[in-house]
Amino acid sequence: MAKNKRIKTGMAPGSIIYTGDKAITDTMIHHLQFTSDSIKDSVVKNEKEIKINKNSDSDLIDWIDLRGMQNIEVISSISSLFKIHPLLQESIVDVYQRPSFEEYENGIFIIVKALSFDKNTISVSKEHVAIFLKHNVLLTFQETPSDLFESVRKRMSNTMSRVRQRGADYLLFALLDTLIDNYHITLDRFEETIEEIEDRITEEQRSSDKAVIHKLKKELVVLRKSIAPLREVISKFSKSESEVIKNTTQIFIRNLYENTVQITDSIDSYRDMLTSLQDLFIAEVSFKMNKVMQLLTLISVIFIPLTFLAGIYGMNFEYIPELQYRYGYFVLLGVMLAIFIMLLILFRKKKWL
Amino acid sequence: MAKNKRIKTGMAPGSIIYTGDKAITDTMIHHLQFTSDSIKDSVVKNEKEIKINKNSDSDLIDWIDLRGMQNIEVISSISSLFKIHPLLQESIVDVYQRPSFEEYENGIFIIVKALSFDKNTISVSKEHVAIFLKHNVLLTFQETPSDLFESVRKRMSNTMSRVRQRGADYLLFALLDTLIDNYHITLDRFEETIEEIEDRITEEQRSSDKAVIHKLKKELVVLRKSIAPLREVISKFSKSESEVIKNTTQIFIRNLYENTVQITDSIDSYRDMLTSLQDLFIAEVSFKMNKVMQLLTLISVIFIPLTFLAGIYGMNFEYIPELQYRYGYFVLLGVMLAIFIMLLILFRKKKWL
Amino acid sequence: MAKNKRIKTGMAPGSIIYTGDKAITDTMIHHLQFTSDSIKDSVVKNEKEIKINKNSDSDLIDWIDLRGMQNIEVISSISSLFKIHPLLQESIVDVYQRPSFEEYENGIFIIVKALSFDKNTISVSKEHVAIFLKHNVLLTFQETPSDLFESVRKRMSNTMSRVRQRGADYLLFALLDTLIDNYHITLDRFEETIEEIEDRITEEQRSSDKAVIHKLKKELVVLRKSIAPLREVISKFSKSESEVIKNTTQIFIRNLYENTVQITDSIDSYRDMLTSLQDLFIAEVSFKMNKVMQLLTLISVIFIPLTFLAGIYGMNFEYIPELQYRYGYFVLLGVMLAIFIMLLILFRKKKWL
Amino acid sequence: MAKNKRIKTGMAPGSIIYTGDKAITDTMIHHLQFTSDSIKDSVVKNEKEIKINKNSDSDLIDWIDLRGMQNIEVISSISSLFKIHPLLQESIVDVYQRPSFEEYENGIFIIVKALSFDKNTISVSKEHVAIFLKHNVLLTFQETPSDLFESVRKRMSNTMSRVRQRGADYLLFALLDTLIDNYHITLDRFEETIEEIEDRITEEQRSSDKAVIHKLKKELVVLRKSIAPLREVISKFSKSESEVIKNTTQIFIRNLYENTVQITDSIDSYRDMLTSLQDLFIAEVSFKMNKVMQLLTLISVIFIPLTFLAGIYGMNFEYIPELQYRYGYFVLLGVMLAIFIMLLILFRKKKWL
Amino acid sequence: MAKNKRIKTGMAPGSIIYTGDKAITDTMIHHLQFTSDSIKDSVVKNEKEIKINKNSDSDLIDWIDLRGMQNIEVISSISSLFKIHPLLQESIVDVYQRPSFEEYENGIFIIVKALSFDKNTISVSKEHVAIFLKHNVLLTFQETPSDLFESVRKRMSNTMSRVRQRGADYLLFALLDTLIDNYHITLDRFEETIEEIEDRITEEQRSSDKAVIHKLKKELVVLRKSIAPLREVISKFSKSESEVIKNTTQIFIRNLYENTVQITDSIDSYRDMLTSLQDLFIAEVSFKMNKVMQLLTLISVIFIPLTFLAGIYGMNFEYIPELQYRYGYFVLLGVMLAIFIMLLILFRKKKWL
Repeated sequence: MAKNKRIKTGMAPGSIIYTGDKAITDTMIHHLQFTSDSIKDSVVKNEKEIKINKNSDSDLIDWIDLRGMQNIEVISSISSLFKIHPLLQESIVDVYQRPSFEEYENGIFIIVKALSFDKNTISVSKEHVAIFLKHNVLLTFQETPSDLFESVRKRMSNTMSRVRQRGADYLLFALLDTLIDNYHITLDRFEETIEEIEDRITEEQRSSDKAVIHKLKKELVVLRKSIAPLREVISKFSKSESEVIKNTTQIFIRNLYENTVQITDSIDSYRDMLTSLQDLFIAEVSFKMNKVMQLLTLISVIFIPLTFLAGIYGMNFEYIPELQYRYGYFVLLGVMLAIFIMLLILFRKKKWL
Repeated sequence: MAKNKRIKTGMAPGSIIYTGDKAITDTMIHHLQFTSDSIKDSVVKNEKEIKINKNSDSDLIDWIDLRGMQNIEVISSISSLFKIHPLLQESIVDVYQRPSFEEYENGIFIIVKALSFDKNTISVSKEHVAIFLKHNVLLTFQETPSDLFESVRKRMSNTMSRVRQRGADYLLFALLDTLIDNYHITLDRFEETIEEIEDRITEEQRSSDKAVIHKLKKELVVLRKSIAPLREVISKFSKSESEVIKNTTQIFIRNLYENTVQITDSIDSYRDMLTSLQDLFIAEVSFKMNKVMQLLTLISVIFIPLTFLAGIYGMNFEYIPELQYRYGYFVLLGVMLAIFIMLLILFRKKKWL
Repeated sequence: MAKNKRIKTGMAPGSIIYTGDKAITDTMIHHLQFTSDSIKDSVVKNEKEIKINKNSDSDLIDWIDLRGMQNIEVISSISSLFKIHPLLQESIVDVYQRPSFEEYENGIFIIVKALSFDKNTISVSKEHVAIFLKHNVLLTFQETPSDLFESVRKRMSNTMSRVRQRGADYLLFALLDTLIDNYHITLDRFEETIEEIEDRITEEQRSSDKAVIHKLKKELVVLRKSIAPLREVISKFSKSESEVIKNTTQIFIRNLYENTVQITDSIDSYRDMLTSLQDLFIAEVSFKMNKVMQLLTLISVIFIPLTFLAGIYGMNFEYIPELQYRYGYFVLLGVMLAIFIMLLILFRKKKWL
Repeated sequence: MAKNKRIKTGMAPGSIIYTGDKAITDTMIHHLQFTSDSIKDSVVKNEKEIKINKNSDSDLIDWIDLRGMQNIEVISSISSLFKIHPLLQESIVDVYQRPSFEEYENGIFIIVKALSFDKNTISVSKEHVAIFLKHNVLLTFQETPSDLFESVRKRMSNTMSRVRQRGADYLLFALLDTLIDNYHITLDRFEETIEEIEDRITEEQRSSDKAVIHKLKKELVVLRKSIAPLREVISKFSKSESEVIKNTTQIFIRNLYENTVQITDSIDSYRDMLTSLQDLFIAEVSFKMNKVMQLLTLISVIFIPLTFLAGIYGMNFEYIPELQYRYGYFVLLGVMLAIFIMLLILFRKKKWL
Repeated sequence: MAKNKRIKTGMAPGSIIYTGDKAITDTMIHHLQFTSDSIKDSVVKNEKEIKINKNSDSDLIDWIDLRGMQNIEVISSISSLFKIHPLLQESIVDVYQRPSFEEYENGIFIIVKALSFDKNTISVSKEHVAIFLKHNVLLTFQETPSDLFESVRKRMSNTMSRVRQRGADYLLFALLDTLIDNYHITLDRFEETIEEIEDRITEEQRSSDKAVIHKLKKELVVLRKSIAPLREVISKFSKSESEVIKNTTQIFIRNLYENTVQITDSIDSYRDMLTSLQDLFIAEVSFKMNKVMQLLTLISVIFIPLTFLAGIYGMNFEYIPELQYRYGYFVLLGVMLAIFIMLLILFRKKKWL
C-alpha cells in the first residue's frame, strides 16, 4: 500500500491528482432532480449535459453524484461549473485527506470516509467521499462506482419520505446518516471478530491468533484515523450557521452527533479490549507452559532418582552384597514403590496433581 | 449479542423501532396522580384512558410510567399526546442511545441506563430508561416490566415525604438518585468480585481466573460506556436553567453531581485494579514456574551426574580395574554421597532449598 | 469493607446516616472560645450547653469541635443550631463523600480526609472530616474521638501564636495545614515501604513481594481518591471571595495550594515507581529463571551424551569388539573427558560459566 | 552524538555559534530575484554583493537562500543587513532549537526541521532550517549545502506557476509545503520498515529484530520531537495577522495545517504500532518456547519411564524371576509399547500432537 | 533520605527551618555592586555590613548572593532587611518547595532547582535556589557554598558584557539561563547513561542492568518533579508585567521559555526510552532463554531415545535374541546413527540448528 502513497510529493500544491489505488474504469455521473412532487433520475456523460435549475425561488433540488475519481478532467470541469476552489478540487480527489468540514460563503464542503470490514482478511477498506452543498444543489463524489447511498435513493422513490419533503440540507444529513450507520455495521463486525477469538482463546491458543490480534490492532489504527476526526466534523456541522442549513434540519444533525460520539467511544473501547485480549493470550500461553513444566518436573522428579537406583544395582562390581540377597530385588522394588508413593503424596499436597 | 444489534441500519432516521433484545410480552402504563395531600395510582391500557390535569395553576402532578418498550404503537401514541418530537421518540426506544440530557422549550429529556451486576455470570446488564419532564408532568419509559423505581413509590405513599411535597422536578431528581444509588450497589458487587479473586490468587492460580479477569475488564468497558457520559448529563442537568426545574431542587441536583463524580472515579480506579490484578496473576504464575524449574533443576543436577557414574560401572568392559577392588562398590557409594552432600550445601547457599 | 458500604442505598436523599464502620462509643464536643488575649476550653454534652457569642463586632472566636460521628442526633441538632442545610448535614456524616469545597451565603463548607499509613499491614486508613466556617465561628466534625488537631491546640495555648492573633479563617487554614502536613508523613511512610522492597528485591525475590506490591498499588488508589480532589478543593478555597476569609489569610492559602500540588505530584510519581518496581520484580524473576535454566541445560548437555556412551558399553551384546580391548575402558574414559572439556570450553565461550 | 551537543553551555546567551555536527566546507548564497514576468538567479559571495530592491511598491521579490551554517560571519552579516535581532541570529544557527513561529513588527520568523529516514541504518536525520519573511524579501537558511527546495526552484522556472504569480508569502508557503511533503516520504519509509518486520516476524524471530524495534522506537522519539511542535507552528502561521501574509495565501496555509495534523496523527499511530509489534515479538517468542517445551516434555514423559523399566531389568540381582522367563523380554517390550501408545493417545487428547 | 524529610511537620506554618540534609558549616555572603562602568565584589559577614544604594535613580545594581542555608538567623535578618514576607522566608530555606514564580508589589520571587547527574552512582542531586528581584537589587540564596553562578561572574568582569550593560532583571535572566544550561548537561549525561546500556544490552545482559534501569527510572521521577513545574515558572516570568522587568529583557525570557520547553520535551522522551529499554532487556532475556531451551530440548530429544535403546540391550533377560546375533551391536549402532541423522535433519528444517 505504501508504495504509491505519495505520488503527489514534489508537485505544486493544488495539483488535482487522484491519489487512490483502486482501478476504476470510468466516471459515472448520476443527476437526480426532485421536488416533493416529482423526481427525475438521469445518467449524464459530462458537465455539459447537466442542466441545473437556476431559479433560486423554485424548490427543485439537484443532486449530482459522481462515482469513480480517476477521471480528473470530468471532476475538474464539474467542480468548476459549481465554482469550487482549486484547493478543494485537490481535496476531492486526494484520498489521503482526513475527514474535514469547511464552510464557505456559498456553501459547505465535507470530506468523510466510507468504511467496511472484511472478517476473512481482517482488513478495513476505506472509500473517500467528498460532498459539496450549495443552495438547492448537492454534489457528491464517491471514490468507486459502487453506490454507497443506495438505501437513500430507495427511500427517495417514496413521495412521502422525509428526504423528498425537506430539501438539499436534509438530503446531505440523510447521506451522512447512511455512512455513519455503515460505521456501526463495520464496528459490529470488528467486535464480532474480537469476540470470536475471545471465545476460542481460553480453549486453544492458535499460533495465528497472535498475528490476528496484531492485525486487528493495526486495522483499529486505520479505523481510528478515519473516525476520530469525524466527531469534530459533525460537531462543526451541527454548530454551522451557514444559510444553506435550515433550522428544522439542525435537530437531526445534533442527533447525528450523538451517534458519532457513540462510535468514537466504541473505537476507544476496542483498543482496551484488544490489549486485554493480547494479555489474555500471553496469560493462557504462560499458564499452559506452567502446566507443561509441572508435568515434566513431576515425571523427572519421580523417575530420575528411581533410574539412578536401578543404575546402582546395574553396576558390575564384583562385590555388591545386596545383589546376593535372595529377596534383594523385591526389597528394592518395594523401596522404589515407597519413594514413588511418597512423591505422589507430596505432589498432591502441593496441588500439582 | 452483536447479531441483532443494528437492526435499524439502513432505515430512515427517525424510524421508531425497539432495538433491545429483551423479550417483553406487554407494555404496562402506570399513572400516578398526586398532590401533597392526595395520591391516586391507576394502571391504564392506552393513552386514551390517561386524563391529565390541564389546569397549570393546580399543584396536581402526573407521573406516567411505561414499562416494556416493545409495543411501539403505545409508546408512539403516548409520546405524541405529550408532543414529543419524533426523533426523541426514536431515542426513547433505541437502547443503543448513550445517556444524554437535552433541554427543549417545553421540558427536558433525559436518557440514562439502569445497571446491575451478576456475580455468578460476571456480567453487567443494562436497562434503557428515558425520562421526559414537562411542567407538572413526568413521563418515564422503562425497558422491562420490573419496576426500577419501587423504592421511590414506597416513599411516596408517605404524605410527609419530600417527593410528595416538592413537585415533578424533585420527583425526577428522586428517580435519578435511585438509579445512581443502584450504580453504587453494582460497583460494590463488581469490586467484591475483584477482591475475591485478589484474596485467592496468591494462594492458587486457577486456569479460569485469566478468563474471569478478562471478562471483568470487558464488563468494565460496558460499565464505563454507560456511566462515563452520565457525568456530563448530570452536570448539564445541574446547570440547566429550564423553568421546569425549581431553585430549591437545584441544590439536590448538585449533590447528585458530586455522587456521580464519585462513581466515575471508582470506574477509573477499577481499571487500575484489574490491570494490577492481571499483572499479579502473571507474576504469581511466573514465580511458581520459577519454583518448579528450580526443583527440576535441583533433581536433575544432583541425579544426572550420579546416574552417569553408575552407568560407568555398569559397562561391560573386560578390564575395569575398579570393579575388581573388594570395596570398590562402597568407595563409589561414598563418592556419590559426598557429591550429593556437596551439591546440597551449594544449593542451600544459593537459597534454593 | 465492601459489605456495609452502602447502607444508605434505597433511602431518601438527605437521610442523615453515619456510613462509616468505625465503632465509636460517644460523641465529644469541645468548645474553644478565644480572643488574642483570652482562651477558654470546655467540653460540653449537647448543643444546649453551647453559648455562642452573638455580638458580631466582638473579636471573640468560637471553635466547636465534634469528635465521633455515630451519634446522629447530636450532630443534627448542632448543625441545625448553626443553620446548616440538611443535605450538608448528610454530607457531614457520609464518609463516602469526596473532598469538596462549597461556598454558601453565610459561610464555607469543606470536606477533607485525614490519612495515615500503617507500614506493617500496608494499609491506608482514612478519617472523614467536615468543616464549616461562619463569621467568627468554626465547626469541625471528626469521625473518631482521637484528636487530629492536637498540634494546633498546643500552639494556641501560646498567646503570641498566629492562630490566636488572626481569627477563625486563619484557624481553618491552620487545621487544613495540619492535615496536609500529615499527608506528607503518610506519603513518606508509603515511599519508605516502596524503597525497602526496592533495596531488597535485587537480592532476593520473596513470594510475598508480589502481593505487597499489588497491595501498595491498591492502597495508592485509595490515597489518590482522597487526595486528587483536594487540589481542586484548595484551589477553590484560595480563589474564594467569601467574606468570611480575610485578605491577609489568602497568602497562606495560596501557600497551602503549592503544598497540595506537591502532594498530588508525589502521588503520580508513586504510581510510576510501583509499576517500575513490579517490572523490576518480573525482570529479576525472569533473569533468575534464565540462570536456573542455563544450569539445567549445562548439566544436561554435558551428562546426557556421556551417560548415553556409558549405556552403549553397558549393553549385553555377545560381540562388542571394544569391550574386549585391554584398555577400552581407559580409552572411553579419555574420550568422555575430552567431550567434557570441549563442552566446558564451548560454554565458557558462550559466557554461560 | 551526545558529545558535542551542548558546546554552547556556559556561554553568554545570544552567542552566535553553530551547534550542529555536520562538516560543511563553505556557505553558498543563492539570490533569486523574480517578478511574474522575469526571473534572475545568481550566486553571490557575501552580503555586499546582494542588491535588494528598495522600492516597496515594486512587485520584485528577493529570495536569498544560504546553504551551510558553519560560516558564522556570513550569516551574521547578512542577518544584520536585514536587521534580524541577535537572539534570532543565535536561533538560526542553533540546530537544537525546536520548530517555532514568531511574529515581529517587520516580518515573521520560522524554524523548522527537514527530515529524512535511512532504511538501512534505521536512522532519522534532521536538518535545521530557518526562514525569515519580510515584505517582498524571503531569507532562508539551510544547514547543509544540498538544496531542500529544488522542486520549488524547478517550478519557478515556469512563468505560469503560482509561485511566480503570488509573491513572497506564497513562496514561503510553497517551501513549507515541500518540507512537509518530505515528511510524508520520511514517514512512509518509516512505516515500510515497520511493515517489513511485521510481515517477517510471524515466520521467524531474528535476534536483531528486538534491537531494530527498539531503534525504531528511539527514532520515533526523534521524529516526534521535530514534528510535534510543527502543529502549533503552522497553526500560529495560519492565524497570523501579520501584514506580510496576504489573504489569498491564507487558504493555502489552512490547507497546510490540515496536512500537518495528518502527519502528527501518523506519528501517534506509529507509536501504537511499534508497541504492538514488540508485544507480537514477545508473543511469538513465548509461543515458540511453549512449543519447544511441549516437545521436550513429550519426549521426556515418554522415554524417562521406559528407560527406568529397562534400568530395572539391567540390574544384576542374583534372583530376578522375570529375567528367567523365556518370553520375559518380549512381554516387557509389549508392556513398553503399550505404555508408549497410551501416552501418545493421552497427548493427542491434550492436543500436544 | 526519607528519614529527616519532613522535620517541619507539626510546626506552625511560616516556621523558618532549613529542611535540607546537606551538612554546611557556614553561610557566606557575596555582595557585588556594579554599574556598566565599575564593579566591586566584597564578602560580608552579616546584614549589617551590607550597604545598599538607596538612590533609586542611580544605575548602581546590588547583587547579594548567600551560599549555605543552614544559618537561619542570617537568612532571616537579610530577608527582613529587604522586607521579604515571612512565608517567603520559609520558602527560601525549605528545600521541598517546588519551583515557583510569584509576583509581589515590590518585586518578584523565584524558586528553582540546580540539578546535576552523577553517572557512577546513577543519581541526581538537587540544590535549592531562591531568587528575589527588586528594583536594582537581586538577592540569591544557594543551598551549598559551591557557586552555581561562577560563569556569570566571569562574564561580568568584562565591562562590555551584556550583564553589565542591562541591569538587575537581565542579571536574573542570565542566572536562570546558566541554571537551565546546566539542565542540558545533566540531561545529556542522563542520556549518555541510557545509551551506554543500550549499546551493550544486545550483546550481554548483566544482572545489574535491571537495577540500573530501575534506578534511572526513579531518578527520572526526581528530574521530572524538579523540571516539570519550571515550564510554568518561566511562562509566568515571560508574561510578567512587573515593573522590575524591562521590555528589552522580555525577548530574552521568551527565548529562555523555548529552551525550557525543549528540556521538558526531553524529560518525556527519556521516559519512553527507559520503558523501551526495559522491554528490550526483557526481550533479550526471553530470547536467550528460548535459545537455551532449544539447546536443552535438542540434546534431550536426540539422546533420551538413544539412551533408552542402549538401556534395552543392557537388560539381563536370559533370552534376548538380538544379543546373540553376530552383528547385533553394529546393526544397533547403525540404527542409532540413522535416528541421530534423521533428528538432525528434522531440527535443521525447523531452523533450530
